[in-house]
Amino acid sequence: MAKKEKLSTDPYKGVRDFYPEDQAFLNYFFATIKGMVEKAGYVEYGASILEPAELYKSKGVENEEIINEQTYTFVDRGGREVTLRPEMTPTVARMVAGKRRELGFPLRLFSIPNLFRYERPQRGRMREHWQLNVDLFGSDSLYADAEIIGVAYGVMKAFGASDDDFVIKVGSRIWLNQLISELGLDAERAQSLRRLLDAKDKMPIDEFKTKLAELQVPEGVVLDAAPPAEIQRMLGEFAAAGITNIVFDPSIVRGFAYYTGMVFEVFDTHPLNNRALFGGGRYDDLTEMFDDEPIAGVGFGMGDATVHNFLEVRGLLPAYLPPTKVYVAITSPELAGEAQTFAGFLRAQGINTAIDFGDRKLGDQIKTATKHKIPYIIVVGPDELASGSFVVRDLAAGKDIPLAKEAIADFFLNS
Amino acid sequence: MAKKEKLSTDPYKGVRDFYPEDQAFLNYFFATIKGMVEKAGYVEYGASILEPAELYKSKGVENEEIINEQTYTFVDRGGREVTLRPEMTPTVARMVAGKRRELGFPLRLFSIPNLFRYERPQRGRMREHWQLNVDLFGSDSLYADAEIIGVAYGVMKAFGASDDDFVIKVGSRIWLNQLISELGLDAERAQSLRRLLDAKDKMPIDEFKTKLAELQVPEGVVLDAAPPAEIQRMLGEFAAAGITNIVFDPSIVRGFAYYTGMVFEVFDTHPLNNRALFGGGRYDDLTEMFDDEPIAGVGFGMGDATVHNFLEVRGLLPAYLPPTKVYVAITSPELAGEAQTFAGFLRAQGINTAIDFGDRKLGDQIKTATKHKIPYIIVVGPDELASGSFVVRDLAAGKDIPLAKEAIADFFLNS
Repeated sequence: MAKKEKLSTDPYKGVRDFYPEDQAFLNYFFATIKGMVEKAGYVEYGASILEPAELYKSKGVENEEIINEQTYTFVDRGGREVTLRPEMTPTVARMVAGKRRELGFPLRLFSIPNLFRYERPQRGRMREHWQLNVDLFGSDSLYADAEIIGVAYGVMKAFGASDDDFVIKVGSRIWLNQLISELGLDAERAQSLRRLLDAKDKMPIDEFKTKLAELQVPEGVVLDAAPPAEIQRMLGEFAAAGITNIVFDPSIVRGFAYYTGMVFEVFDTHPLNNRALFGGGRYDDLTEMFDDEPIAGVGFGMGDATVHNFLEVRGLLPAYLPPTKVYVAITSPELAGEAQTFAGFLRAQGINTAIDFGDRKLGDQIKTATKHKIPYIIVVGPDELASGSFVVRDLAAGKDIPLAKEAIADFFLNS
Repeated sequence: MAKKEKLSTDPYKGVRDFYPEDQAFLNYFFATIKGMVEKAGYVEYGASILEPAELYKSKGVENEEIINEQTYTFVDRGGREVTLRPEMTPTVARMVAGKRRELGFPLRLFSIPNLFRYERPQRGRMREHWQLNVDLFGSDSLYADAEIIGVAYGVMKAFGASDDDFVIKVGSRIWLNQLISELGLDAERAQSLRRLLDAKDKMPIDEFKTKLAELQVPEGVVLDAAPPAEIQRMLGEFAAAGITNIVFDPSIVRGFAYYTGMVFEVFDTHPLNNRALFGGGRYDDLTEMFDDEPIAGVGFGMGDATVHNFLEVRGLLPAYLPPTKVYVAITSPELAGEAQTFAGFLRAQGINTAIDFGDRKLGDQIKTATKHKIPYIIVVGPDELASGSFVVRDLAAGKDIPLAKEAIADFFLNS
């Protein structure tokens, strides 16, 4: 290779490298979600990150900023305008509309895609992140709304959260639209009201009240609003099941224009992080982009960085443990073949085993095992091979356990 | 939503949608690989699909075509040139070089990233595909080469292939470089020889011999070449372990310029698909892009579409079974809440359960379960709820099994 100026080892700006410990958290995020949502009957789908740009251009005006300024959009060599998906809902709506005859409803789908936004990187808001998307298509039943909220609740519990750690605030676009109609607000004031409600938790209550007054909206119609009957009923059923951290909050409106009914957000109750973790809602018209006959939908999205922060603050992050159980070190490089055979013997019994090639001193081989956080090490030399007696070193406990070759796998399987 | 022209439900050109059955294959691909490579001590990492474009511009000339004409490269809003990664090796080399002090060697890494190439879509060559990448860093031991070939062999076996189904052909860049030096070939003829060797299996043997003669390369030095001593030794150890479908083949050279030693390709032996499935090799200088002190590396990549074709032709594709075990249908919509409670009872015992909201007739609810290939259905009506006696219908067998509520989960766990 010709001598060149050295390249930076940094990733592209605003995205993350996932070294094994970071990837292990992602895998934990994926597996925890998957276990919970599959229990509830959801089935995984996937799609490319590349989507035709027009998929994001027909969803109303509220998210024009995101569409025009915050997507990665470029023209490919064939003249097609293509976008790196900034969210998954348009993709799943496209897929469901495309096979509506074959799919069968109600249809429960989930995916954990990576999404892209071209924005200034900040804590919890990267240019690429992973997001669980859970959607239920083909039913406008109140029980479908309740199920989706229940799945959001169940996912929080699956991550180890207790009911005190979070509260699910449920709002209603129907309630809001009625209020706007009753107050006779024009389009501009209606939009100002939606934005004000959405920002309620980011300002002192007095400021919120002042701003309501500026819009000539009586504070009581918002602050003392009673839950709509169907939300009241849903909250009653959750309460009857012992779940009391799901409440009505009229200020929940969600940003996306496509929501048509129930909307909700899951809030962290931690005093230092009192903010929305994620949310979702009902969107019954979205497939109209593709088709005249709309398919009812309700769902939510939940990002990996948000969950990571939540778990970190509460000490709920699992400790890293590599998939490798044991590291075989050798006293000289000529034994690498024997080490591989010995490792194969353990692997055949279900033990994930790595070997060293003996290029470095024994002390350095043990350092490698320690850096990789592999819990056990076995040093293989001519004596061990001749006698069939080995010593398993428990690196965390600093303890040596002598074992016959045939007993080693059993020891690992039971420890 | 304003009336608009309807959008197409097709994905972006050359990429795939993964409906549940397609995603299930991908998940099988991921899980099979993961089980096998973790057994051998490899640990998963990940990275963004977005990489600085210069990462692909400093690897020598052989792949200029790919770099200049077959990548998705664009300039972001901050003026940075960014590429959707066309392969993973430069990314993992960047990551390893970036944390060389912390990582500990030998270092075994794997990832199953999606990769992008802007090329004309054709069978098995999409614009986006998924590819297992397995790499072993920090050892130039012959046993590291052997381990990587052994992992490729093991992955094929994990997918259910028998030794007759494939052959691993091992070549050597060192052998080739020596040959070029002994023959005194200039750079242009050396490149022609590499290309001719790479294309050997795509032409009749006579044509290959004629072209060798045109390059003034005696056919014997290629066709009758004896394996270099270290490859001979490696093949001997595989043979001693009973593995005989790993052979020396001097025509294996691999496209990428960065290979420096052993190179290999796994060939399908099926008469209708006699071609390279995937391959890899040793690349000891790649991290020089970032750092003066190179880190030895050896690895391979294996794509999802190639494996899918291989398994399909041999009848090795697993049948689709959804994660959902049972579908709860209801006799009227008012029972949706009771159905959810009943489903919760089954889920708490480990049974993945979906419910219907009763918006459609019972026959249509059963059609939904059938379309989703859910194996069992339970119809819940007032009688079942009152008596606690349910009927489990086995949809494939067309058999009804009457069971008390408490016995249902056990039945599923044992069937």
